[in-house]
Amino acid sequence: MSPEEARSRLAALGFSEHDAGALADLFLFAEATGRSGHGIARIEQLEARTDLDATARPVREVVDGSFERWNGNGAVGYVTMAEIVESVLADPPAHVRVIAAGRTSPTGALGYWTRRLADAGLVAVLTGTSPKRLAPPAGGPKLTGTNPLSIAIPSSEGPPIVSDVSMANVNFGDVLAGKASEDDLGPFGGEHAHKAFALAVGLQLLVDALAPVEGNGAVLLVARPSADPVPAFRALADGARLPGDSAKA
Amino acid sequence: MSPEEARSRLAALGFSEHDAGALADLFLFAEATGRSGHGIARIEQLEARTDLDATARPVREVVDGSFERWNGNGAVGYVTMAEIVESVLADPPAHVRVIAAGRTSPTGALGYWTRRLADAGLVAVLTGTSPKRLAPPAGGPKLTGTNPLSIAIPSSEGPPIVSDVSMANVNFGDVLAGKASEDDLGPFGGEHAHKAFALAVGLQLLVDALAPVEGNGAVLLVARPSADPVPAFRALADGARLPGDSAKA
Repeated sequence: MSPEEARSRLAALGFSEHDAGALADLFLFAEATGRSGHGIARIEQLEARTDLDATARPVREVVDGSFERWNGNGAVGYVTMAEIVESVLADPPAHVRVIAAGRTSPTGALGYWTRRLADAGLVAVLTGTSPKRLAPPAGGPKLTGTNPLSIAIPSSEGPPIVSDVSMANVNFGDVLAGKASEDDLGPFGGEHAHKAFALAVGLQLLVDALAPVEGNGAVLLVARPSADPVPAFRALADGARLPGDSAKA
Repeated sequence: MSPEEARSRLAALGFSEHDAGALADLFLFAEATGRSGHGIARIEQLEARTDLDATARPVREVVDGSFERWNGNGAVGYVTMAEIVESVLADPPAHVRVIAAGRTSPTGALGYWTRRLADAGLVAVLTGTSPKRLAPPAGGPKLTGTNPLSIAIPSSEGPPIVSDVSMANVNFGDVLAGKASEDDLGPFGGEHAHKAFALAVGLQLLVDALAPVEGNGAVLLVARPSADPVPAFRALADGARLPGDSAKA
């Protein structure tokens, strides 16, 4: 799908020209980096929604020093994420900022947002919750979303390093596409699945404790780096593929 | 080992009464929760060190709003972690604080420190780097430490939920104890080991970017919660074991 077509289909749903462009960039980046579950399928999802309010705007409810709390306020999660990231880029923190975003779902591929911040020279750590799909490996009810964690570190030479890891063993997009069964969905890790589950629980409660509005949300930490570790890390890696260099992780 | 014996052996190494008590509490908590690799074996390690300076003190080099940068300054990592956590407990943040601690290693079991903060009603997220022991699953040089991530969330009822997850497939304490071979050591996750590796890389570079002094370090985020999600989460779990309820994760 061309950027023009993506923007035009989103505009047809009522999104402003700015928002349609922001969402098209997000979905087409996901396609280009092999994460089609976060790609243009999301335009079809939006088109199928009967409750879509493409003009709703998020609200920044609390600003206090390095802390902000946002409320999606009925806006599509992607729109809220775009507005948050643009607010940081327009006014980056001197040292750190923590942003708790309630009612902010879906977020899209987290690595897209952290990469944009790292491209601007900022360290970014972002997590977000999603519908409860992971049960404890030892059995029990589904307690957490797939709760990805993305970390992006800028570099003075070349692209940032961007990790973006969901705690699930299968991509939920593959479930939607019929390539995997929802019954197979659990925390990744095999014999160590309790580790991914513990991470998912910690991230779930982190978001729930800091972004306390109904529904799913996100927590973003942005920091100005004091050092530039990526070039030496890439040299040490000696050509090994690093997170964010391609589609995976 | 009794608390008295632990404190007395640590005091014999030159630690102050306060520091000996703080380290004894850390090691005995690890023993009591089944993490013997972080337990009294660490006293023997300290006793075996020829470069130990039990009187060195960490320095808080930068304090700017919600950001602090510390330098271990030759102090044992455990001492630096104790001093950081005590400083937060003595003066907790209104909303958030991010502390980057350079030259702060070893830290001991991260879950001990985040639990202490959560016991005081604070959300805590802590990671730390360690000697490079994890290589990319597809092959290549060892690029990261085992880089655990701990997240603790306080609760108005009962204990906090505390996740504490290393990105390695075996406990390095088991390698030291001869129960596992260092050759077996890699990122956890089996077919999804690229996920744990990506997390280890992100956490490695996060610490390296924010705590830029030679050697390993730690990054701590402390936040005051806006909600109390743990009681409802425990109710939903319906008796399933949750992170921090026992020795594992």
